[in-house]
Amino acid sequence: MSTVPCVFCDIVAGRGPAHLVYSDEHVVAFLDRAPVTRGHTLVIPRKHSSGLSDLDPALGTPLFAAAQRIADAMKTLEFGAHGVNLAVNDGRAAMQTVFHTHLHVVPRRVGDKLSFATGLVTRRAGDLATTAAHLRSLIGDRT
Amino acid sequence: MSTVPCVFCDIVAGRGPAHLVYSDEHVVAFLDRAPVTRGHTLVIPRKHSSGLSDLDPALGTPLFAAAQRIADAMKTLEFGAHGVNLAVNDGRAAMQTVFHTHLHVVPRRVGDKLSFATGLVTRRAGDLATTAAHLRSLIGDRT
Ligand SMILES: [Zn+2]
Ligand SMILES: [Zn+2]
Repeated sequence: MSTVPCVFCDIVAGRGPAHLVYSDEHVVAFLDRAPVTRGHTLVIPRKHSSGLSDLDPALGTPLFAAAQRIADAMKTLEFGAHGVNLAVNDGRAAMQTVFHTHLHVVPRRVGDKLSFATGLVTRRAGDLATTAAHLRSLIGDRT
Repeated sequence: MSTVPCVFCDIVAGRGPAHLVYSDEHVVAFLDRAPVTRGHTLVIPRKHSSGLSDLDPALGTPLFAAAQRIADAMKTLEFGAHGVNLAVNDGRAAMQTVFHTHLHVVPRRVGDKLSFATGLVTRRAGDLATTAAHLRSLIGDRT
């Protein structure tokens, strides 16, 4: 946990509201409140780091493994994604806005380039509770 | 190695040309030949996988750790980046073009939004040999 207030540490501690998608010993994943596409998820390490420079490298595998599970759930017929973009924005110059390291998992569909570009600007929430419940059930099915 | 020809497996095997930036037991990193910004690097596992679904999750840490080292080199005063974007494009719908899993490391500078947007379209190579040598020397300094 950070010594300064951190909205993502609050989510890890269960004090902040979030639409959880997945969690394990090392990471927590929840929906981005301003998604680029429906299902846009953030995977974060439970242990605070502000960015890549102070992230424990051993967390690479739990972060990636969680993203792989979430991506597989998104790519089921039931959820309907055809691909995903993973991204880490490290530093203000790279568009990082919350300084607790996070890995974006953004589901993509064939032919969604225009709605993706629009989503980058509008970032409408939609029904986060329903989307999170759907992803949780699909991830649960795979364990 | 893949059973079908793979340009990235060729680079791992030393048969394909590449401007190498970093390598270790698990991963190889080299400059993107069509960089979005100067220094745009790809980190790939030596072992072939086509995407996230068939990537060995244990490779998350070597991939991330290499990206962290490269990002730290980019963020030195000598190289001059202020941040980096990491990205994995998984699937054609997510703009994946080479089907050997790869992690993009794209250096960013404060105020580069316009040149970044232009770079996404133009992707000019520039002097890759000089850029690769510079990054190698900066990564070497940190070992
Ligand atoms: Zn935090
Ligand atoms: Zn390959």
